[in-house]
Amino acid sequence: MTENTGVQIVLAARPKGAVRLSDFQLRKFSIPTTSTGELLLEVNYLSLDPYMRGRMDDRKSYAEPAKVGDVMPGETISTVIAPQYPDFATGDLVLAYTGWCTHAAIQPEKVRRITQRALPITTQLGVLGMPGFTAYAGLKEIGRPQKGETVVVAAASGPVGSLVGQLAKLAGARAVGIAGGPEKCAYVKNELLFDAVVDHRSPDFRRALQAACPDGIDVYYENVGGAVWQAVLPLLNRFARVPVSGIISHYDSSSHTPGPDLLPETMRLVISQRLRIQGFLNFDYTGKLYGEFQREVSQGIRDGLIKYREDVVDGLDNAPNALLGMLEGKNFGKLLIRVREPHVTIDTGKSR
Amino acid sequence: MTENTGVQIVLAARPKGAVRLSDFQLRKFSIPTTSTGELLLEVNYLSLDPYMRGRMDDRKSYAEPAKVGDVMPGETISTVIAPQYPDFATGDLVLAYTGWCTHAAIQPEKVRRITQRALPITTQLGVLGMPGFTAYAGLKEIGRPQKGETVVVAAASGPVGSLVGQLAKLAGARAVGIAGGPEKCAYVKNELLFDAVVDHRSPDFRRALQAACPDGIDVYYENVGGAVWQAVLPLLNRFARVPVSGIISHYDSSSHTPGPDLLPETMRLVISQRLRIQGFLNFDYTGKLYGEFQREVSQGIRDGLIKYREDVVDGLDNAPNALLGMLEGKNFGKLLIRVREPHVTIDTGKSR
Repeated sequence: MTENTGVQIVLAARPKGAVRLSDFQLRKFSIPTTSTGELLLEVNYLSLDPYMRGRMDDRKSYAEPAKVGDVMPGETISTVIAPQYPDFATGDLVLAYTGWCTHAAIQPEKVRRITQRALPITTQLGVLGMPGFTAYAGLKEIGRPQKGETVVVAAASGPVGSLVGQLAKLAGARAVGIAGGPEKCAYVKNELLFDAVVDHRSPDFRRALQAACPDGIDVYYENVGGAVWQAVLPLLNRFARVPVSGIISHYDSSSHTPGPDLLPETMRLVISQRLRIQGFLNFDYTGKLYGEFQREVSQGIRDGLIKYREDVVDGLDNAPNALLGMLEGKNFGKLLIRVREPHVTIDTGKSR
Repeated sequence: MTENTGVQIVLAARPKGAVRLSDFQLRKFSIPTTSTGELLLEVNYLSLDPYMRGRMDDRKSYAEPAKVGDVMPGETISTVIAPQYPDFATGDLVLAYTGWCTHAAIQPEKVRRITQRALPITTQLGVLGMPGFTAYAGLKEIGRPQKGETVVVAAASGPVGSLVGQLAKLAGARAVGIAGGPEKCAYVKNELLFDAVVDHRSPDFRRALQAACPDGIDVYYENVGGAVWQAVLPLLNRFARVPVSGIISHYDSSSHTPGPDLLPETMRLVISQRLRIQGFLNFDYTGKLYGEFQREVSQGIRDGLIKYREDVVDGLDNAPNALLGMLEGKNFGKLLIRVREPHVTIDTGKSR
């Protein structure tokens, strides 16, 4: 590596409502030498995910909020360029939470080496990474779909929703997807082979969802909230399970959302239908489920039973705009920033 | 039995908001003869419970709503006065859903004989009946308090809340009760021996609850909703469990409650704290838990480890007014209507 200057993208200001480009700032920095006792990494791919919106607010959550001036948080695939430790060699590919940057120095115990080579490495940030594991853990631990039950998931063309539906089908359940626009709906129905798909932009969305779920809903994998939740709630069957991961429609809202208050109606149905609404974070289940997740999903991909799609945007400086687009549902598949292609040429498996 | 005329209380009108006395009507009826092939019962005690408010509305729930003109639903302790079947004798005491009335004819398979005599029969409608089993099932199946955890319950002097707290203590957890007014609070602290009690009428209720839960809340047994839920929510610990039975503060509200909308903030904490909110009805667990419930709780009463309190009102015609009072929190202990004392004199065990 000959460059001495790297680039980071930092949180410039906390968003007021929707995120704007001015909430980010590009900052150059001197790439540290290896005398710090840390691994030096060159970043190849940055994963953009909805949770990042939450970190931009100064609000209590499962993780500390980013501070103004901090590098935006995020997971990357990176190449070791200065190993420093006998366990690592120059050119090793690793997963690390380096944040939005071109280079980073990081403690060796904080990286995870990428060992599998049978599938494109980018899968390690998507279907075989955090989003895939989020789908897997929530469905297996909380959703627990049974043969013949109906499983509904929104953002069905995205990395979490697409795997939720495909795993539901593998469990013998009916998968009903919700997606935005005809292109994504066609993909969900024709490529991912969900049993039904409903366009949430359609003016008769509620009626269409009801028609797609003639036997009600047994598992609703909640990752969007808002109007979708209101349409789903009256269709939930007795003893339905609702695993809750991120809720993208709430990220921009302040802690006081105007009425009507939907909590009483929700709680009334929680009782009468004996609903189970349960929040979870994938990393609570790492020890218990990560191994079987990797085996089961990579086998499913190799057997052609699990498909995935990636939406790769070139250049770190395009990350803020790409994140804004994702929060508006403009991406189509797992959103990745290609910061710099690894030196080893690798099939990125854009859609399979 | 010499009377030929019985009395029923029927739903005269669906409540608009809070229940009024004019929503009920007293109706005389001819006591049926025994030629109908049903058991003829004389009612002794009628249980008044919060769920009755829900049945007065024309709204989808776990049970059909009462129709205008129907006898108000309810469980009673009754005496068999015309047995008709070899299994029954005149004077047998039974539990039956006769509704609010002095007499009823009922199919023999719909009654449950009261066999235990070690404790007052009224316990069969309270601590050893439906309310007690509601407390037991929700706490054992969903709440699952562990040693050293903090369990919070509202309406803590009532039949459900008082047992929730006492069972929590028997499981080695800290019990924190919420009750209305100094008399009930003193009872919860000094008689039921909860670790702490907070008066929800106090102007600094939120701060007092926080002070009573220095280590946060691990189990919140939800039976009231409203302002109590708002105070509890920010105190819930990671992986807290929220069994939800009735929500008394929501019964009067229409399906559109004015804002702010508390659902987004609730769901945000569901995720960040990985909360489990689960509705249940006691009868879902009858087969699995009823036997151990009866054994465990009656043993606890005999050993002096479980206390209970009954609030007995005389006369069926006082039932509407008593229900109104209960919905405003005016009763103190399990509310029962003494319709007619059984011929066998029985200790009603008002407070022990």
